Amino acid sequence: MPATVFDSAAGRDLWHDADTARLFGDGAEIRAMLLVWGALAEAQGALGVIPETAAAAIQRAAHEIAVDPASLSAETGANGVLVPALAAAVRAAMQAPEHSQYLHWGATSQDIVDTALALRLRRCLTIWQERLDATLDALARLARQHAETPMAGRTWGLAAAPISFGAVVAGWGWPVLRQVDRLDRLRPEVLCVSLSGAAGTLSILHPHGPAIRRRIAEAMDLGDPGTGWHAARDGIAGLAAWTTTTLTVLAKMGADLELMAQTDPPEIALPGAGASSTMPQKRNPVQPAQLRALAALARGLNAPLQGAAEARQQRDGAAWMTEWLALPPLAHAMGRATLLARDLAAGIAPDADAMAAAVDGGAGLIHAEALSFALAQEMPRPEAQALVKRLCRQAAETGTPLADLMAAERPGRDWAAVARAPGRLGTAPDDARAFAAAVDARRTAG
Amino acid sequence: MPATVFDSAAGRDLWHDADTARLFGDGAEIRAMLLVWGALAEAQGALGVIPETAAAAIQRAAHEIAVDPASLSAETGANGVLVPALAAAVRAAMQAPEHSQYLHWGATSQDIVDTALALRLRRCLTIWQERLDATLDALARLARQHAETPMAGRTWGLAAAPISFGAVVAGWGWPVLRQVDRLDRLRPEVLCVSLSGAAGTLSILHPHGPAIRRRIAEAMDLGDPGTGWHAARDGIAGLAAWTTTTLTVLAKMGADLELMAQTDPPEIALPGAGASSTMPQKRNPVQPAQLRALAALARGLNAPLQGAAEARQQRDGAAWMTEWLALPPLAHAMGRATLLARDLAAGIAPDADAMAAAVDGGAGLIHAEALSFALAQEMPRPEAQALVKRLCRQAAETGTPLADLMAAERPGRDWAAVARAPGRLGTAPDDARAFAAAVDARRTAG
Amino acid sequence: MPATVFDSAAGRDLWHDADTARLFGDGAEIRAMLLVWGALAEAQGALGVIPETAAAAIQRAAHEIAVDPASLSAETGANGVLVPALAAAVRAAMQAPEHSQYLHWGATSQDIVDTALALRLRRCLTIWQERLDATLDALARLARQHAETPMAGRTWGLAAAPISFGAVVAGWGWPVLRQVDRLDRLRPEVLCVSLSGAAGTLSILHPHGPAIRRRIAEAMDLGDPGTGWHAARDGIAGLAAWTTTTLTVLAKMGADLELMAQTDPPEIALPGAGASSTMPQKRNPVQPAQLRALAALARGLNAPLQGAAEARQQRDGAAWMTEWLALPPLAHAMGRATLLARDLAAGIAPDADAMAAAVDGGAGLIHAEALSFALAQEMPRPEAQALVKRLCRQAAETGTPLADLMAAERPGRDWAAVARAPGRLGTAPDDARAFAAAVDARRTAG
Amino acid sequence: MPATVFDSAAGRDLWHDADTARLFGDGAEIRAMLLVWGALAEAQGALGVIPETAAAAIQRAAHEIAVDPASLSAETGANGVLVPALAAAVRAAMQAPEHSQYLHWGATSQDIVDTALALRLRRCLTIWQERLDATLDALARLARQHAETPMAGRTWGLAAAPISFGAVVAGWGWPVLRQVDRLDRLRPEVLCVSLSGAAGTLSILHPHGPAIRRRIAEAMDLGDPGTGWHAARDGIAGLAAWTTTTLTVLAKMGADLELMAQTDPPEIALPGAGASSTMPQKRNPVQPAQLRALAALARGLNAPLQGAAEARQQRDGAAWMTEWLALPPLAHAMGRATLLARDLAAGIAPDADAMAAAVDGGAGLIHAEALSFALAQEMPRPEAQALVKRLCRQAAETGTPLADLMAAERPGRDWAAVARAPGRLGTAPDDARAFAAAVDARRTAG
Repeated sequence: MPATVFDSAAGRDLWHDADTARLFGDGAEIRAMLLVWGALAEAQGALGVIPETAAAAIQRAAHEIAVDPASLSAETGANGVLVPALAAAVRAAMQAPEHSQYLHWGATSQDIVDTALALRLRRCLTIWQERLDATLDALARLARQHAETPMAGRTWGLAAAPISFGAVVAGWGWPVLRQVDRLDRLRPEVLCVSLSGAAGTLSILHPHGPAIRRRIAEAMDLGDPGTGWHAARDGIAGLAAWTTTTLTVLAKMGADLELMAQTDPPEIALPGAGASSTMPQKRNPVQPAQLRALAALARGLNAPLQGAAEARQQRDGAAWMTEWLALPPLAHAMGRATLLARDLAAGIAPDADAMAAAVDGGAGLIHAEALSFALAQEMPRPEAQALVKRLCRQAAETGTPLADLMAAERPGRDWAAVARAPGRLGTAPDDARAFAAAVDARRTAG
Repeated sequence: MPATVFDSAAGRDLWHDADTARLFGDGAEIRAMLLVWGALAEAQGALGVIPETAAAAIQRAAHEIAVDPASLSAETGANGVLVPALAAAVRAAMQAPEHSQYLHWGATSQDIVDTALALRLRRCLTIWQERLDATLDALARLARQHAETPMAGRTWGLAAAPISFGAVVAGWGWPVLRQVDRLDRLRPEVLCVSLSGAAGTLSILHPHGPAIRRRIAEAMDLGDPGTGWHAARDGIAGLAAWTTTTLTVLAKMGADLELMAQTDPPEIALPGAGASSTMPQKRNPVQPAQLRALAALARGLNAPLQGAAEARQQRDGAAWMTEWLALPPLAHAMGRATLLARDLAAGIAPDADAMAAAVDGGAGLIHAEALSFALAQEMPRPEAQALVKRLCRQAAETGTPLADLMAAERPGRDWAAVARAPGRLGTAPDDARAFAAAVDARRTAG
Repeated sequence: MPATVFDSAAGRDLWHDADTARLFGDGAEIRAMLLVWGALAEAQGALGVIPETAAAAIQRAAHEIAVDPASLSAETGANGVLVPALAAAVRAAMQAPEHSQYLHWGATSQDIVDTALALRLRRCLTIWQERLDATLDALARLARQHAETPMAGRTWGLAAAPISFGAVVAGWGWPVLRQVDRLDRLRPEVLCVSLSGAAGTLSILHPHGPAIRRRIAEAMDLGDPGTGWHAARDGIAGLAAWTTTTLTVLAKMGADLELMAQTDPPEIALPGAGASSTMPQKRNPVQPAQLRALAALARGLNAPLQGAAEARQQRDGAAWMTEWLALPPLAHAMGRATLLARDLAAGIAPDADAMAAAVDGGAGLIHAEALSFALAQEMPRPEAQALVKRLCRQAAETGTPLADLMAAERPGRDWAAVARAPGRLGTAPDDARAFAAAVDARRTAG
Repeated sequence: MPATVFDSAAGRDLWHDADTARLFGDGAEIRAMLLVWGALAEAQGALGVIPETAAAAIQRAAHEIAVDPASLSAETGANGVLVPALAAAVRAAMQAPEHSQYLHWGATSQDIVDTALALRLRRCLTIWQERLDATLDALARLARQHAETPMAGRTWGLAAAPISFGAVVAGWGWPVLRQVDRLDRLRPEVLCVSLSGAAGTLSILHPHGPAIRRRIAEAMDLGDPGTGWHAARDGIAGLAAWTTTTLTVLAKMGADLELMAQTDPPEIALPGAGASSTMPQKRNPVQPAQLRALAALARGLNAPLQGAAEARQQRDGAAWMTEWLALPPLAHAMGRATLLARDLAAGIAPDADAMAAAVDGGAGLIHAEALSFALAQEMPRPEAQALVKRLCRQAAETGTPLADLMAAERPGRDWAAVARAPGRLGTAPDDARAFAAAVDARRTAG
């Protein structure tokens, strides 16, 4: 009974990402919460806040106890938060009230839930980055290989001037590369311990609270924010923003691939394009469409996540619950999109001939800018531009190649050669190679 | 491995709505698609487009065949759409190629998927409306019962002038009542058969296409749009908009309840308010917060659903997939919110004494407007207003009731009586009763 | 110093809509508020709530007084709302304190501001509808004229099956027509008087409040909601939703036009397409892009407007201010988009030859579905589909027309004739004409 | 005729920010574009790409020529972009065709517009940061001053445990401080030269393009991205995200202030709170509401700006225009919000007595957690918690202070003293001071 395609059995191979899903399951959440309690008890035991024997018992329990998520549902439904039910279940399972009373000592629900989230997000970010790195590697290969493969550069949807396919690929890759760089900065901002207690003051643990938080941070390899973040959600908002932008720049690649698959003949072949239920000829660009749809969903989910950063007072139930609702599907969208991007980057097959045909097609109008600047060597540029503009209209109406019309109008110069001059691709080859080199450099540095 | 809290086992009693969930499960979708194929075959058999025996065989199969959703995943992953895999499974199960070749005859995937969606949405809307009706009934009872229970009316968050709790309840109910009325108009716009074929022309079925669509519509009790809606998604956009606004006006009730639960003493007791994991005194207003969080999610999901109505050309894969991603969680949010609203409306316990205390508290400043207009009977209103304003400041600083200060400044009139005059609640009692009557009238009419 | 392109002097001819802008200027708002005060005083005078002479004086003032908006800024900055400053200015200008003290009697700021908004929205809706009607008329002409003009129907961006340009136009028009129909229902829901007083109870006017509201409604030709809507914003939310969906379905036309302008040769010529600053050949599809950008903005602005319907308690400053911020630019976007749509619908020049070329291009793969169903008369459909699929691949690789490959594989039937059979456009011609007839019927009815 | 309140004459003192507005006016945009052309020409002259005399003439013109924005409107309306009209105006004004033909040499419209935007955004960011710094300074003062001022910490809207007002202030300030830190990283990502030519290859300037870009970057003190960003909008998306989150964390302060102004007596007095048009006693929390409304608008505008990063192919008209539509009002919202935050931070007057009253009110239930942990020294914590829970219910019903009930139930210990124990504020005082110290440290470092 899935609320999203991500959990659909029938749609599993289309939408699911098992690695991300695993981290958002009930089991993973409960396991992470148990680990947080274990680390809390360890720190408290070491600092003498709770008996060491109790600390040891809780740590053991945190690793050993298995809790059936469904058994927590009734009490969670009454409390609004998973923690009381889970704490009760753990205490019951421990069968040692003298120790288990020290479980969750001085903490509040949000401390446990948010730290457990940070633990799981850390793994998420690692998984996603591996795929983004693989995407970048594949794009770098493509960019280098096609650094000089001519293709129609298109602006406002229309053929503008020649570019190379490698430069187009670099155009997909640069923002992804920058997003990966930004991830390095995001990590310490969001992968933090939360330990602030009921109203953010750790009063029950006073004066040991900060030391406990620091110790947990070290033990769990998370950041110690030095303060609380119950109602300071800029870190989560930053994660949502980064994820949304990353999904969107991947969708840009998808949007371009869709358009490349639409030319006649198609400039690109997609791996495993979709069959139609009724049209034998169709090979639908399914994965690019998925990238765009997932990014649209992400932008939708991002809005409430940004709004949740307006969290009121010391803790805000509605704002926090908004995160529970919107963050997991956003993560699933990101999980699938990173898989799709990686597979597309590795699997697309560009057709250099089709690309060349597009450059030469359209009566060669794509060369108009180059021809007008060449003509500007003979006359003032505004006049040159006006003349070429007139010939462009003529070419469009008659289908006669623009260079031929130029030759007729301004004989004595090989205008077709001008259009094919070396350098007509400008920085495109260098840009493609610079991107590939930047990817290599990052891999080497990493 | 849920991508949303709606499918969490641990969160089931907090977030799940089994009735809505049932309609969005793989099983329900497949069953609905089978029914659509059955109706399509029936219509085509009756109109002589396919052999009647084949039609009968397909209809039988549509009712009898059980398909394991997971078995469709691989092929769906390759095609991007469930239909080819499901058609293949049905054909295989029929073991009668001479009949099964007529399955899905002349239709396209989106015809089947969208009609199956309409079937399930019809049931959704019925379920949600029943709960909204129950919510209205409960609110009508409350409004009538408390039509004259004084309460502090608050604007910009501050005590403004007295109102009655019944009128406050009516303020929650009127928009819900109007949304239910709007639902009557929405239904025929979104609960429609889709049958348009590959590019929206029904060419394979020509000239029988429209008659087949009409017959299916009658058989399935859906609307016949008379044209296609593969890329005309104003109906779905209208559904998303209606759902979003409905969730938001329910969240307004939630927001007000949260604030009523915050006064000291609380003006309202909530059914089953949530316990804290560490603070014995806390009874968190969980359900109101849920209403607000669900509405925030809905507004987020609404944005891509509105965007999907920009669907390009004759069918738009990315736009359609955006609907697949965003509509089911929106429906789950609506399902849970209608349950919450119904239970809150039936279960909240207003505390008339606490409400009265708030009206009389704050040095009686809430009566300032009434006193200033009464004073305006003796002097020009601007002067009256200026005088009362001065006394308000004094009352706020000293805590002396405003009416006492009035009595000192303008003796000879019983200012406390003015503040308590009959009529001070204005239209509030009538408004509360008018709302209750409107709910009754709708029930009687319905 | 414009905060939006709508107010840019340089961008005026690109973004401005003078008719809509006029209604959102300071002057128009102030004038509307004066009219509301005049109508309030008239009703109160007639019902004996205030002296008739005062009522007459206020009415006169409402029509005669001119207020410099800038003069209100300082006091408005202090109060947060325009009303106190404007009331003071009117009172000062009236120079008759014995009358002017009855200005704004028993009302609250939001009553005046919201009723003044309703007045201006009424005019907005009229203006927009006129343009939508003109758009529909132009689309109806196009649809009728090109009911049988063959064009490539495209799904997932790829040629799917033949359609007619008239049917494509109908596909743009149907949702617009439905939105215009929906506007008829929206009007009474949003064009309403607001008169509820400080906390929604009209206590100062008791028991005359409802009668005054009714009288104002009649005088101003607005609806009488029978209750207050200070914090019941489903009407405004409905307006925002309608506007957003309307902009989006217009953007669908824009999106399709962009794609039609990208084929080689272009299937459509746009009126006044944009010149490039450096490329002589470019005729950028500026207006279609504007439609899409305006719709994207609208969807962004719609979200906070939906959120504002969560307005807290009896009046909610932040929610109300959110409407002030988001509604005017949404209206400007709608204003410009309706102009653009009208001009595009009237000015686009379809190129039937280019459309035909696209149908026949691509090795005739667009006919694959028709050929496979024709072949299914000779063999089971799954086999027919598999065979055609194989030939499609061959056609795509070799460029040999699919019909020729069919002829080689299955000689003895004129497969090219099958592809060109009458009826291959299916319902497209009828659909185009049905849309045109529906537009005519609405015009006749209206 | 303003499309937004930001440009309203009547609303100027409420919504306007002259400093930000100045940067988004037509005049500022044109001036910035002229400067870009000047820098382009200078670089091209120095590198020998155009004649030095032409370069000098263009540079002079860039500083001297004044263009009336309105004169550009007609041509801009035809082209969709300001550049051709402005270039023509400049060329005409130069009256030296031999020089002016080299204006805009090899660039495309988007190069000029985007670089001019970067120039203006740099100034914007400086202005906003100054105000955020001033906000931080004021918050730091407050935090330090009230580090130990007790206040009710509230979670889920309810009194939870004591905190200090200084810690609450720190809770507002920490996210602002982090946002200011993030701004340091954002700057180089968005304040970049754009110079890529028609299709992103700088072909007309080949091979001098990159060197020209570098020289412009140095001259204008902008970053050189080393590649193009016509269709790589992650920088703009990052700016929108940062602005949105910053506005939202400022709105969190607004939301908390609204709630503090609602307690009886109010815990906070706001500078210049708004007067009501009819209620003498009201002092509406206008500025906090504005902060929330502006943030809601920002989150709405953020969505299309994120979507614009899906920009198609080499340049995408609709995506770019979406930025034109949404970025300026977002900047105006940020401009006003930073003013409001600065003035609020400097002007709010906390009332320590009112805060203390809230801590002691509510039958002292706020001490329940502290009492339960103290009681847990005498009995197992679950039992202690159950006992305190029971007494909490009793206290809520009877109004008897919880500590008194504890004394009756568990005599022999001074429970009221436990509730007032030193350390009951936990980390609050330290957190307040740590925030103040962090602000000081940043100022010293900066």
